[in-house]
Amino acid sequence: MPLASLSAELEAKSPVYTAVADRIWDHAELRFDEYKSIEEQITALEAEGFRVTRNVGGIPTAFMAEAGAGGPVLGFLGEFDALAGLSQEAGVAEPSPITPGATGHGCGHNLLGAGAMLAAVSARDMLAKNGLPGTVRYYGCPGEEGGSGKTFMARAGAFSDLDAAVSWHPGVVSGVMSSRSLANFQVYFRFKGRASHAAGSPWLGRSALDAVELMSVGVNYLREHMPLDCRVHSAITNSGGNSPNVVQADAEVLYLIRGPRVKEAQALMERVKACAEGAAIMTGTRMEMEIDKACSDTIPNTALEMRMFENLSAIGAPAFDAADRAFAADIRRSLSEEDIADSINSAGAPEDVGAQPLHEGVLHFDGQSRPGNGSTDVGDVSQLVPTVQCWGPTWAVGTPFHTWQAVAQGKSPSAHKGMIQAAKAMAATALDVFQDPELLARAKAELKQRTGGKPYACPIPDDVLPPPLRAKRR
Amino acid sequence: MPLASLSAELEAKSPVYTAVADRIWDHAELRFDEYKSIEEQITALEAEGFRVTRNVGGIPTAFMAEAGAGGPVLGFLGEFDALAGLSQEAGVAEPSPITPGATGHGCGHNLLGAGAMLAAVSARDMLAKNGLPGTVRYYGCPGEEGGSGKTFMARAGAFSDLDAAVSWHPGVVSGVMSSRSLANFQVYFRFKGRASHAAGSPWLGRSALDAVELMSVGVNYLREHMPLDCRVHSAITNSGGNSPNVVQADAEVLYLIRGPRVKEAQALMERVKACAEGAAIMTGTRMEMEIDKACSDTIPNTALEMRMFENLSAIGAPAFDAADRAFAADIRRSLSEEDIADSINSAGAPEDVGAQPLHEGVLHFDGQSRPGNGSTDVGDVSQLVPTVQCWGPTWAVGTPFHTWQAVAQGKSPSAHKGMIQAAKAMAATALDVFQDPELLARAKAELKQRTGGKPYACPIPDDVLPPPLRAKRR
Amino acid sequence: MPLASLSAELEAKSPVYTAVADRIWDHAELRFDEYKSIEEQITALEAEGFRVTRNVGGIPTAFMAEAGAGGPVLGFLGEFDALAGLSQEAGVAEPSPITPGATGHGCGHNLLGAGAMLAAVSARDMLAKNGLPGTVRYYGCPGEEGGSGKTFMARAGAFSDLDAAVSWHPGVVSGVMSSRSLANFQVYFRFKGRASHAAGSPWLGRSALDAVELMSVGVNYLREHMPLDCRVHSAITNSGGNSPNVVQADAEVLYLIRGPRVKEAQALMERVKACAEGAAIMTGTRMEMEIDKACSDTIPNTALEMRMFENLSAIGAPAFDAADRAFAADIRRSLSEEDIADSINSAGAPEDVGAQPLHEGVLHFDGQSRPGNGSTDVGDVSQLVPTVQCWGPTWAVGTPFHTWQAVAQGKSPSAHKGMIQAAKAMAATALDVFQDPELLARAKAELKQRTGGKPYACPIPDDVLPPPLRAKRR
Amino acid sequence: MPLASLSAELEAKSPVYTAVADRIWDHAELRFDEYKSIEEQITALEAEGFRVTRNVGGIPTAFMAEAGAGGPVLGFLGEFDALAGLSQEAGVAEPSPITPGATGHGCGHNLLGAGAMLAAVSARDMLAKNGLPGTVRYYGCPGEEGGSGKTFMARAGAFSDLDAAVSWHPGVVSGVMSSRSLANFQVYFRFKGRASHAAGSPWLGRSALDAVELMSVGVNYLREHMPLDCRVHSAITNSGGNSPNVVQADAEVLYLIRGPRVKEAQALMERVKACAEGAAIMTGTRMEMEIDKACSDTIPNTALEMRMFENLSAIGAPAFDAADRAFAADIRRSLSEEDIADSINSAGAPEDVGAQPLHEGVLHFDGQSRPGNGSTDVGDVSQLVPTVQCWGPTWAVGTPFHTWQAVAQGKSPSAHKGMIQAAKAMAATALDVFQDPELLARAKAELKQRTGGKPYACPIPDDVLPPPLRAKRR
Repeated sequence: MPLASLSAELEAKSPVYTAVADRIWDHAELRFDEYKSIEEQITALEAEGFRVTRNVGGIPTAFMAEAGAGGPVLGFLGEFDALAGLSQEAGVAEPSPITPGATGHGCGHNLLGAGAMLAAVSARDMLAKNGLPGTVRYYGCPGEEGGSGKTFMARAGAFSDLDAAVSWHPGVVSGVMSSRSLANFQVYFRFKGRASHAAGSPWLGRSALDAVELMSVGVNYLREHMPLDCRVHSAITNSGGNSPNVVQADAEVLYLIRGPRVKEAQALMERVKACAEGAAIMTGTRMEMEIDKACSDTIPNTALEMRMFENLSAIGAPAFDAADRAFAADIRRSLSEEDIADSINSAGAPEDVGAQPLHEGVLHFDGQSRPGNGSTDVGDVSQLVPTVQCWGPTWAVGTPFHTWQAVAQGKSPSAHKGMIQAAKAMAATALDVFQDPELLARAKAELKQRTGGKPYACPIPDDVLPPPLRAKRR
Repeated sequence: MPLASLSAELEAKSPVYTAVADRIWDHAELRFDEYKSIEEQITALEAEGFRVTRNVGGIPTAFMAEAGAGGPVLGFLGEFDALAGLSQEAGVAEPSPITPGATGHGCGHNLLGAGAMLAAVSARDMLAKNGLPGTVRYYGCPGEEGGSGKTFMARAGAFSDLDAAVSWHPGVVSGVMSSRSLANFQVYFRFKGRASHAAGSPWLGRSALDAVELMSVGVNYLREHMPLDCRVHSAITNSGGNSPNVVQADAEVLYLIRGPRVKEAQALMERVKACAEGAAIMTGTRMEMEIDKACSDTIPNTALEMRMFENLSAIGAPAFDAADRAFAADIRRSLSEEDIADSINSAGAPEDVGAQPLHEGVLHFDGQSRPGNGSTDVGDVSQLVPTVQCWGPTWAVGTPFHTWQAVAQGKSPSAHKGMIQAAKAMAATALDVFQDPELLARAKAELKQRTGGKPYACPIPDDVLPPPLRAKRR
Repeated sequence: MPLASLSAELEAKSPVYTAVADRIWDHAELRFDEYKSIEEQITALEAEGFRVTRNVGGIPTAFMAEAGAGGPVLGFLGEFDALAGLSQEAGVAEPSPITPGATGHGCGHNLLGAGAMLAAVSARDMLAKNGLPGTVRYYGCPGEEGGSGKTFMARAGAFSDLDAAVSWHPGVVSGVMSSRSLANFQVYFRFKGRASHAAGSPWLGRSALDAVELMSVGVNYLREHMPLDCRVHSAITNSGGNSPNVVQADAEVLYLIRGPRVKEAQALMERVKACAEGAAIMTGTRMEMEIDKACSDTIPNTALEMRMFENLSAIGAPAFDAADRAFAADIRRSLSEEDIADSINSAGAPEDVGAQPLHEGVLHFDGQSRPGNGSTDVGDVSQLVPTVQCWGPTWAVGTPFHTWQAVAQGKSPSAHKGMIQAAKAMAATALDVFQDPELLARAKAELKQRTGGKPYACPIPDDVLPPPLRAKRR
Repeated sequence: MPLASLSAELEAKSPVYTAVADRIWDHAELRFDEYKSIEEQITALEAEGFRVTRNVGGIPTAFMAEAGAGGPVLGFLGEFDALAGLSQEAGVAEPSPITPGATGHGCGHNLLGAGAMLAAVSARDMLAKNGLPGTVRYYGCPGEEGGSGKTFMARAGAFSDLDAAVSWHPGVVSGVMSSRSLANFQVYFRFKGRASHAAGSPWLGRSALDAVELMSVGVNYLREHMPLDCRVHSAITNSGGNSPNVVQADAEVLYLIRGPRVKEAQALMERVKACAEGAAIMTGTRMEMEIDKACSDTIPNTALEMRMFENLSAIGAPAFDAADRAFAADIRRSLSEEDIADSINSAGAPEDVGAQPLHEGVLHFDGQSRPGNGSTDVGDVSQLVPTVQCWGPTWAVGTPFHTWQAVAQGKSPSAHKGMIQAAKAMAATALDVFQDPELLARAKAELKQRTGGKPYACPIPDDVLPPPLRAKRR
């Protein structure tokens, strides 16, 4: 099946999906609240004849859309949740919130879902056109940002009958994404003390905020004695009130605990928990721990990645024009040298990629996966089935994730071009898998070898409900 | 002038003021937002012929009402601000918020202002009835809770031409209040760091929340090395966001720093500031300090206090009835033994006061003032003119300040009775001062001796505006 | 019995005891190592016909010497241990160690024991001379400095058959010492972790030093929430070695925990222990707690104190001369204003005492005891029998305890004079007790009233051996 | 030059050097105190006709011995200092100190110097025997353990005219050592506060120990925000005394700060210093920083390492016998699985090396250097001239450095065998360099490429004297 034909078909349909991406950018809905965003997608997919299953895993904004029949079953993974506090006008190269404090698509998920849908539809089209068997799925995966939607979906069995999964992520380069992202656990620690007048009778008080702070001191001491490839960071989600005059009776801190594999992350979580216990004992408060969510590390798949690299190389860089470059250059001026260097380094790109405002090549891939610093719930899919991902060059080189700069570029022509390029690579790689049983077999064998044949164990305990299903507390 | 006559007149007018107290309880407005509460008071005072000056010291909810003419000028001090998070149904002896999270009168200030007004009006009536010269003022003082409204008013000269001041506070006993409340400074410390992805590039981040925590550790170490009669406590007013995934770039903490006199509180503030500076240096963040408010310690006045004790003794305890005692007993059941002991001890009452649900006597006063644990902006008035205060037995013995229990009792018959008793003691003592020039002279001489003749210096720096006049930040 | 006669007899014998004081100053032996110092005393007492019992309570340097017969049994309490690191030439008003780092009598205990002996011998002489019944004892009490020798002796019953006890302490003023010194517990916390190469495999290490530090952070947070009249302070007695390259596997910290009564000190000890437990949990180390010693608070005895005040007043200040004043003035020049103010305040003296280099009066005593900041094992004697103490004006006003200045003055003529004055006051008061059964009865009744009749409970647990009897660890 | 011939000659001379190694083991002298140890070496080298220069760089125990003439100049690097607290009987597989608390050769430096000497002498012999030009040097380098003797020597120019350097280290495997050990700075931070009685007037004290602890808290918070490949660890070298009763006026902490290169280590040192400054400000103490020593990272040299690997492969493993294996197995029983795994991993060996008590192969080397966790002053030599090192299999697999187990094996037959094998590899590689100008040229070109041609800058500031030349403080 010639790549040229796929490219042409895909580009023809792309305006529908860039429009969906733009509308999702406008909705900018937070994790598990993506009600409008999924309607945009479901409408487009149903128009293409996909059969939609809603409420996957019981999550109101999780869905699955399927087309085709027989053959291998391939899943395209899409995300579409936004971030808090990142409201920003599109196309403006300086901080300019539409509504200060409002949400914004700072991680490009408006493009992510739309691009994966475009790939899924195009792959289905090509199978159909060539009379080939094969089942194409698009997974609408909510709550990636701090929510691990896919992990809840994986626990519910949503990916169990897949043969392979394909996805991508908006970014600053074009290339295969082959990193072992970290497993993580996100955990609330709540302390309950006793209020008292902080001047009149502080000796009667037992401070929950003291406990949060002492836990933090303990965890910072722990850093010296934890493996180098682990991470732990936190946010105080309830400081116990704004009045210094009252000994704080309630406080809460949210920890994000990461390790190269679930096992290490879990072991570290136990040590962090010990710091919470120690802090409670020190302060005479009670501690309660609640796991909010977790996800697994990503298992790379060299077999699929090498094939995707070949496809990307054949597709080549998007055709950026002078206007694209000028806007990217404007964005670049708002970034520090340190940001730029870190962005390039994180993407695994050589230093000279930093010389131009946009990445106009394809990163070389030698089959070597890199250790990852972040986490993604794609990890859980990759534990179940061979999974392959690429980066789409949607943003100026140097753009950090979760910034107004990422939001500002989210509807730009270059973002659309980067999305379309990634969609082509995904569709082409999926079609290779559909047509090449030996490739799929190798990919599956590789996964088995990497997991040692151990069946997937979801890191989220069974009694932790998906966030939208939880009873409201407090 | 016989006390019996004053009592009768005062009781006759009291229904107006208990009704005002009840309506202010309903409004439950926070510091400097007491717009409805001052209208209630101004309406009542204008009906009595008082001349009202609004916007005292430029503060929209500060006012002064005057009546009478010539003679000494005596001021009755009133407060009327509520507290956050203390919504509670009146008359219910278990936690039962009207609107969860809403405001409530947890410090009895609904009674405080109304009671002082009642005393002022009655004193004016008695002067008039007896054809005596004398000027009576009522000061409507906003923002006592963490706002030090009176200190801003004092800085503006509002109390400079007074001869003496009289006030009271709702509480668990009946008696003279003769304590040296602590001077304090309330100060914001803000830290500005640099955000970064907490997993991907934490080394690029400089955490403002780390700075807040390290400052807290430093201040806790400082405790060992500060004078025993000082206090320092704090609240984290901005923890830098709820996302553990981002190194917190901004954070803010509010410190309340107290000492027996302004000098000691200020010296301690400098040492707390050093902890903030040290934390900024440690974390590579920038620190900014803003004084929010301050107040002075209270100077007791034994001359006036002895007289007030005589009046209180003559007036006797309120006539509580079986229903009053039953409700107080219900409230008592919700309190711990420790709370009760602390409440009695704080009031300077003997232990056996704890034997009954309501205090039905008058605390003995031997002229000895007690060190205070809390602070009040009455302190600044007491630095300027001889000031005398009493406790009114409005609540069940053991009721801590700033609790739902205090709110629940705020409209009860016993609260009204306690308020009326205190109003009588205030009015009677004021009338003694009006009629006894020698008493006033002694009171003034005592103040001069206690201050060493040093003129009042307002602890709030000149460039710190009253909160309602400040430009909004952020 | 005329005071003049006692004075003359006592002065006649005093050269023997000032010589003993000077020799004990030279020996400067640390707690429980006072072997030479007790021989000096035993020799002198045996020469006076006292019957000596050694090894009181099994402690090699504790002894008791008795003379007389029948009548009440009165004990004079002596101390004689020195302090580490305070070596200093006598009579030199600038820092000048004899042997740098060596021991020195920085708390005047060379004078304390000798002065008490002089009083005991004189009291016995006067009884004998007047043919009066009465038993005089001198208690040689070792290890007062951080050792609580008397508490171990009390636990062993050494004071159980006494009728009253008398003592004194060298200081900066002349006057009755009537303070409630604090009860305390001295406790070792030891942590056991796991060593590892701090650069190569810090993740394998569990740092005992981290635990000591985190415990300290916890205790500093605890300060806000402990009663104002409690104290806690510590020293790191084993930091786990000098090599930063090794994760410290062992560490030890010594806490001194004080409260107004044994009960409060014990309650605070439990909370400090919780900080140790919390730190162990946080760091994955094991914690072991060992009580080193404890002592009780001092119960004042107003009956005896009023009598001692009368005697002191009759005796008057020592006859200091120009040379005494000149040396004291030299010493004063080495002290800060803050030191001087604190010294005067600690002694409960009025500010104007600071105007002269030596205290040449007698502090007024109104029967009011003062809260104490420090602790002494005299407390345990005072729990058992009525106990009275005075200050001897042995040092320049302003001299802090435990300083080279105190050592430098320890053999000076003014020190000898201050000691003799105190000895007279002790002997005179003891003789009053011997002769006035009603006084003794009142003193005993007062003690009973103050303890509520509760029998003495030694704060040192039964299984804690006196330090010299402990098996050597490590 | 056939390897067989070299091997035979070297083995013939080896008894002299194993005897030297055993005697240095007996002396067990600490850094810069290696007076007896250098006499052992100088005697042996002078007996072989080497010309000895003492006092290299002004350090009494640093020396250089030279033989041969013309040609390239090759240096063999030797170390010989012991460690504190590691006294242990040789040949005993359980903890058994000869003198508890005394020194011991826990890092095998008794073997290190002797083995390098043996290689140097053998290389000289072979050059002479074959009539080849070439200058052989042995560098007696003191104070490697926390002293960076070679760095002081490098600063003094001792290695400036070398062409290449060769060394080895005792360990658990046989193989090339190609790691980038970390640069480091060792720095004292001293705090000066003010003493006071911790119970009586803690408010007058300013605690230097508080400053040390707060600095530590600051540094632990810093860990989250420092590059992953940096390290920092510390030891409290003066905790300010053992008495909890005194606010500690003096305290000292020693930090060891490491980074992948001098630049990063130095940048981190500045941030650690900021924590010290912040702690001083917080506590009102004064801080003083003193750099004790520093060393550079090691630059690998693949050209020489590949050649050494070839030589090692040709030489093969030592001929361990049943007794060797039995003793190693005994030692193994005293080690945890975690220790063993870490030891193997640190050596860069595959897991299966753990299956046998002794390593009886040669680790494969593919030219890839590994990031190092520790530091060595060999780094500074490697910055100046191409430097190559190997591991000698002197200890049971799993033996951690700096343990009694390492000491116990230091005189064993297997230690001698491992040392001889390493000496052969060093001598053979040196002879290759002497005979192959092209190899030397490549090695030099590689060094130039790795340093970017930047000249060596000694990380120890010019004003920091070698420890033995410093005036004694305190």
